[in-house]
Amino acid sequence: MDYLLFFAELVGTVAFAVSGATLAVQKRLDLFGIVFFGVVAALGGGTMRDLLLGHTPPRMFYNYEYVLLAVATALMVFVAAKHETILHIFNKADSFLFNLSDAVGLGIFAVTGTQTGILAGHEKNAFFCIFLGMTTAVGGGILRDMLCGDIPMVLRKHIYAVAAIAGSSIFYVLDLLGFDSGLSSVTAMAVTILMRLLARHYRWNLPRVDETVRKNNPGGL
Amino acid sequence: MDYLLFFAELVGTVAFAVSGATLAVQKRLDLFGIVFFGVVAALGGGTMRDLLLGHTPPRMFYNYEYVLLAVATALMVFVAAKHETILHIFNKADSFLFNLSDAVGLGIFAVTGTQTGILAGHEKNAFFCIFLGMTTAVGGGILRDMLCGDIPMVLRKHIYAVAAIAGSSIFYVLDLLGFDSGLSSVTAMAVTILMRLLARHYRWNLPRVDETVRKNNPGGL
Amino acid sequence: MDYLLFFAELVGTVAFAVSGATLAVQKRLDLFGIVFFGVVAALGGGTMRDLLLGHTPPRMFYNYEYVLLAVATALMVFVAAKHETILHIFNKADSFLFNLSDAVGLGIFAVTGTQTGILAGHEKNAFFCIFLGMTTAVGGGILRDMLCGDIPMVLRKHIYAVAAIAGSSIFYVLDLLGFDSGLSSVTAMAVTILMRLLARHYRWNLPRVDETVRKNNPGGL
Repeated sequence: MDYLLFFAELVGTVAFAVSGATLAVQKRLDLFGIVFFGVVAALGGGTMRDLLLGHTPPRMFYNYEYVLLAVATALMVFVAAKHETILHIFNKADSFLFNLSDAVGLGIFAVTGTQTGILAGHEKNAFFCIFLGMTTAVGGGILRDMLCGDIPMVLRKHIYAVAAIAGSSIFYVLDLLGFDSGLSSVTAMAVTILMRLLARHYRWNLPRVDETVRKNNPGGL
Repeated sequence: MDYLLFFAELVGTVAFAVSGATLAVQKRLDLFGIVFFGVVAALGGGTMRDLLLGHTPPRMFYNYEYVLLAVATALMVFVAAKHETILHIFNKADSFLFNLSDAVGLGIFAVTGTQTGILAGHEKNAFFCIFLGMTTAVGGGILRDMLCGDIPMVLRKHIYAVAAIAGSSIFYVLDLLGFDSGLSSVTAMAVTILMRLLARHYRWNLPRVDETVRKNNPGGL
Repeated sequence: MDYLLFFAELVGTVAFAVSGATLAVQKRLDLFGIVFFGVVAALGGGTMRDLLLGHTPPRMFYNYEYVLLAVATALMVFVAAKHETILHIFNKADSFLFNLSDAVGLGIFAVTGTQTGILAGHEKNAFFCIFLGMTTAVGGGILRDMLCGDIPMVLRKHIYAVAAIAGSSIFYVLDLLGFDSGLSSVTAMAVTILMRLLARHYRWNLPRVDETVRKNNPGGL
């Protein structure tokens, strides 16, 4: 079970680093910018979690392996983008594989974030623990988009942050009920992944306000 | 007196949550985005204050009532925006009511931010305490606008951050002189609210550099 | 030697405050916004460093002199921008002088950031210390640009963050080898300044992905 969770963390780190590095390529950043965006997308959420918990230095500074993995991934995206052929193969392969990996990352980071809160002694504070799970899962994506001046995708896409909140909540409740940590993790991850993939496939979206109304701005702020 | 201050905090939380949720509606975010922006606008400033003070977890994670109030407010903005009729009533009512509530929020958050710094033992550090007051008052609005890629309104509007600094400074000085906390709070709030409403009404602005000159950019950065 | 380093910090603070205040003038912010951007650009990097280290309140809140210097600089930029004549003289003088000052700031902040990490007991964590040097040097510029919704210049310009990383690494290694702190600082600064000025003059850039390819976005994120 532990191997499975560790493997999921690696998959998630790679998927998030790909999303950051790819955005940097699109925004015409240079090689350093590509690596920087890859690292921010993959590790920014966990770093925000650690700052909210008062854990300094944040985990990314003493668990190097994830940073190295994100850097290596970003370099591979750069090489792939330089060589269209590789990119084409990658593009064809990805439609399902990439989305699955990204959903795996969302699920595992929601679980590890919630667990970090519980282990830090906040097990009675459901709101904080679940918030930490959500932050770990979507914080990197929010930072990545803020660095570009874009409105964060994770606040607009088909049930993205909400899937992370669902996973965090399930893990929190199962853990509270005394279930085995491995079982709770896998259940929470499975629900997150399923919600996210179904939402993407069926284009489920949360409700929104219609175009015609949205210009009304109380307060004129 | 304490009831008055508590009531002011509720009013400010609602007003700031309305500003965040309304912006999210305008930016076409979904229901989650609307709630997220409401919470960020209402509680982001206090969270920044707590991180600067090293108070973790930040207050929003154990004083739930403000988060719940911000969430409820954002949901109401969503419902109101969905039903134009309600929105129209709201819009007509607001021109004065909303601006007053927003100014109340600016005043009360400037006071509570400064007070948090003083109570944390930084009473001799005027700059830090006043900075904390300003951050609590305008930090949420800055984060809200950064999430959209907009230049923060609070740095451009008629005497906004400056009114918060005035309120923080007055509270700090009165508290230092030994005045009663309630009296100092109400005085500081009153000045902030008055400055802000007058600035809005008479369109007072701080000086700016003319259009013709502003293209000159030393350093070409 | 210590005087030299102190002088370099002053020069760097002024140069960074000029970059922030100038951007604010260009973005049509008012006087408060100009001062705010000057302070963020000059002191934001050091504040991010302190938060990552868990040092609260951050140094800018008890070493006032740098804040005062940044505020005074921003006010001077405002006055200069108001009076085209002064600005013209400034513009002519600057092409070399401003770039040199900015490079001095990059070098000295990379050194002081790395040193802060070492003195805080993280001398065995090379990655963290060098990251702190980079953050101190480029964090303020990143925050400044994020406040405008612009993609951070420091991630795009000719070898900017990379020069800071080079300076941090050299200081870290020389300090580890037991060299005198003053000597290590000056060597690291000299390399950073030289790299940055040469990169600017010869328009060296890190590799980028060509226009034709960059639209391919694996994952469609």
